[in-house]
Amino acid sequence: MSRMFNENLRSRIMTAEDAASLITSGSTVGMSGFTGSGYPKSVPLALAAKIEAEHAAGNPFHLRVWTGASTGPELDGALARVNGIEFRLPYNSDPYAREMINRGEMEYFDMHLSQVAPMAWQGFLGPLDTAIVEVSGIRADGSLIPSSSVGNNKTWLDRAEKVILEVNRWQSPALEGMHDIYYGTALPPHRVPIPLVRPDDRIGETAFRCDPDKIVAIVETDAPDRNLPFTPPDDAAKAIAGHLLEFFGHEVAKGRLQASLLPIQSGVGNIANAVLTGLIDSPFENMTAFTEVIQDGMLDLLDAGKLRMASATAFSLSPEAARRLNENMPTYRGRMVLRPQEISNHPELIRRLGCLAMNGLIEADIYGNVNSTHIMGSRIQNGIGGSGDFARNAYISIFMTPSTAKGGKISAIVPQASRVDHINQDVQVLVTEQGLADLRGLSPKQRARTIIDNCSHPTYRPALLDYFERALAGSYGLQTPTLPKEALSWHQRFIDTGSML
Amino acid sequence: MSRMFNENLRSRIMTAEDAASLITSGSTVGMSGFTGSGYPKSVPLALAAKIEAEHAAGNPFHLRVWTGASTGPELDGALARVNGIEFRLPYNSDPYAREMINRGEMEYFDMHLSQVAPMAWQGFLGPLDTAIVEVSGIRADGSLIPSSSVGNNKTWLDRAEKVILEVNRWQSPALEGMHDIYYGTALPPHRVPIPLVRPDDRIGETAFRCDPDKIVAIVETDAPDRNLPFTPPDDAAKAIAGHLLEFFGHEVAKGRLQASLLPIQSGVGNIANAVLTGLIDSPFENMTAFTEVIQDGMLDLLDAGKLRMASATAFSLSPEAARRLNENMPTYRGRMVLRPQEISNHPELIRRLGCLAMNGLIEADIYGNVNSTHIMGSRIQNGIGGSGDFARNAYISIFMTPSTAKGGKISAIVPQASRVDHINQDVQVLVTEQGLADLRGLSPKQRARTIIDNCSHPTYRPALLDYFERALAGSYGLQTPTLPKEALSWHQRFIDTGSML
Repeated sequence: MSRMFNENLRSRIMTAEDAASLITSGSTVGMSGFTGSGYPKSVPLALAAKIEAEHAAGNPFHLRVWTGASTGPELDGALARVNGIEFRLPYNSDPYAREMINRGEMEYFDMHLSQVAPMAWQGFLGPLDTAIVEVSGIRADGSLIPSSSVGNNKTWLDRAEKVILEVNRWQSPALEGMHDIYYGTALPPHRVPIPLVRPDDRIGETAFRCDPDKIVAIVETDAPDRNLPFTPPDDAAKAIAGHLLEFFGHEVAKGRLQASLLPIQSGVGNIANAVLTGLIDSPFENMTAFTEVIQDGMLDLLDAGKLRMASATAFSLSPEAARRLNENMPTYRGRMVLRPQEISNHPELIRRLGCLAMNGLIEADIYGNVNSTHIMGSRIQNGIGGSGDFARNAYISIFMTPSTAKGGKISAIVPQASRVDHINQDVQVLVTEQGLADLRGLSPKQRARTIIDNCSHPTYRPALLDYFERALAGSYGLQTPTLPKEALSWHQRFIDTGSML
Repeated sequence: MSRMFNENLRSRIMTAEDAASLITSGSTVGMSGFTGSGYPKSVPLALAAKIEAEHAAGNPFHLRVWTGASTGPELDGALARVNGIEFRLPYNSDPYAREMINRGEMEYFDMHLSQVAPMAWQGFLGPLDTAIVEVSGIRADGSLIPSSSVGNNKTWLDRAEKVILEVNRWQSPALEGMHDIYYGTALPPHRVPIPLVRPDDRIGETAFRCDPDKIVAIVETDAPDRNLPFTPPDDAAKAIAGHLLEFFGHEVAKGRLQASLLPIQSGVGNIANAVLTGLIDSPFENMTAFTEVIQDGMLDLLDAGKLRMASATAFSLSPEAARRLNENMPTYRGRMVLRPQEISNHPELIRRLGCLAMNGLIEADIYGNVNSTHIMGSRIQNGIGGSGDFARNAYISIFMTPSTAKGGKISAIVPQASRVDHINQDVQVLVTEQGLADLRGLSPKQRARTIIDNCSHPTYRPALLDYFERALAGSYGLQTPTLPKEALSWHQRFIDTGSML
């Protein structure tokens, strides 16, 4: 059944191919999509076919692609495979696009997710030609019911010259009412306080506004989000979760956290899910989440009655959890809010609410500077995403990782981070399966001893201690002892031999 | 004439020596002081004498010292010389204390200045035993008129078990009424929006509250702030200012900035003063400042009628400018507001107001990651201060530096920063006397070419280009091409030979 209830727009319904034909080479296209949810699934595929045909005919065809965050194979994957993206922002997790980026064949601007919409408004990213946005329905009044992610859609719809909508009937109709689209943002000097003081406050509207004259195409679809199977937590993830829950308990006992904790922010993945699963059996009650995405573990916490509500900008669910969500949407709806990513990730709100930020990392150095993005300092994995928004402004900023990767050939704790995304000031707690380092109030040298002792893998611990002791003896300055000649030698060794050992 | 008008407190007036005797070894002491203004000038000296005597008698005596930011030789210098500080936060610019820190003889926790007060309230820094706070007067009702800096004084007065006040009659009595002490902060989940929407909004009180029962000593003083002579801008500083003013003009022409600009934040020093001086002859009118400190150039801009008002947490003036300020305080008073540093540097407010952040640096790498703190990655200069608060949240984040230091032996642009305080996402414009790099919306490789071409010194440019080209050919990944083996070799060369050349 169609989800398009506006009579005036009916004439704009067309095929994905016809919609794709409206986009010209050199365009900047703002797409919906955040962590594999709510991205357009049909027009980008048609666009990829068109680009492939143009390239075969010897015609150059390239796009600048903006999104909320990561999308799905039908978008980034398909466009990357036909070499259709010359510039991409702000986040990518598509393996094929990643390869192109790391071969130097696609320019990629990795941004703080809270800053994408403001920068677009400020005009710093250039003009936006076309928005391609998935919605779950079009109301009779022409307002747009958002899909399973909100991301930057409000901004794309407002800023783009032309709008192409995909109306996806696969999305649950019960999504309607779950969204909170805040229209109070402005450019300075006209910005005002964002009137949100609790994670469950509703401050906006349930639908997007969109100038109907800008809507050049509407494509009806029926296709699932990119939902990846859930991987049960392994032993390392369970150990990390155990250390972290013990720490929270300790903070409650000390009176530095209340028993309902503070709004939790959680990245996605194996370790994050282990922490969320661990919280089910924890003594903490009546919790809330103010985070980027609602993943399987968050749904489980809601089911268990431990989590009172969750605020996010998108879902990131396994197929099983997506089915569970869609089948029971009415029971979840009052306990979930999806917001634009400039609100879900807003520094003002994260600081005000006092989020407990839990993010993953690629490596940390002995001083607690964190690399979240670049393997060996140069090869990007995904991007910084919202980790900087949360880590800088959190009540407690926590980073979690197994102490080794690649079967022990990479140490997650290194003498010096080959890349820094989170400076030591923004890293207050570091957790590996080995243990937890509480770094609050410590000087760099105190941090180093704590991290090496508590977090590093025993295989690498003697070498880290040896480096640190020799740096203490021979560093140019002793505030943060380093030996530049060998600070990055572990990375060079991995590049040369396939192992840091 | 005494500035102490409260009768009940009269009995607490004593000598600095008697006040110092109330402090025991192992204490944590929260001192006033920010950029050499408003720090206690008498009790720390007496404390230093006491510590020296204790050490001579073979008794250990060490303090943990917290401040607003930098203080003066009578505080950090005097206490460092007698080896009286075992732990220091959040910022230091005293040369003697710096040497001790870099010899590994003093632990130093370098913090975002906006986070000191919240972290103290959160209990993450441990208990605060004694506050030693300079005020410019005590009213009959016992409220305390702040001095030439506000810093963390509200928090120290609230959190400390015991309070020692220095009432400094050198400070202008006309300071009264200039301060805006916001008492609306709270711990989450009780935080609310900070009701400030323009730099000149007053949201608090003109004096500190203080429980009189906690006041154990009052010492009357008559001593100037550490006011350093003004250094006129050199040619490099003037060139940097010229590039930056041209950029602002360009942004106004493009409609991305209004003609009154947006609230400016400016670091201190030669280059900052050159920019402020340059603004006097600029076409921009009716400007405002939302910044950390009011320095000479800011005063000149106010005098010239170009700056409508300035909000800060402290003064940082030359003796001549301090005299000018104190003699004409009534004419300045309505145009200046001094606030607690958690407000002057608050991410919520910086983002809302859309500050134009202008900060200095030690080095930047070709990708625009900035080192603001550690020479050769290990020897701390001052600290990160408020640069992270402003750079992360600014409308436009600008970093400025001469392209070389030490007579050309150090390049301010290097293959890889030996330390990262500001990640590339937080560095949108980089300026040297060579030129300006507008990095907004650029990928890392695009940034590298722009920075090398526009900002590096011609002496180092070929070597930077050579590194970048070889990294493009041989890097593990090509998102951010690096060669770990030689990424820090310029720093090692400087350590070994005294020159990066």
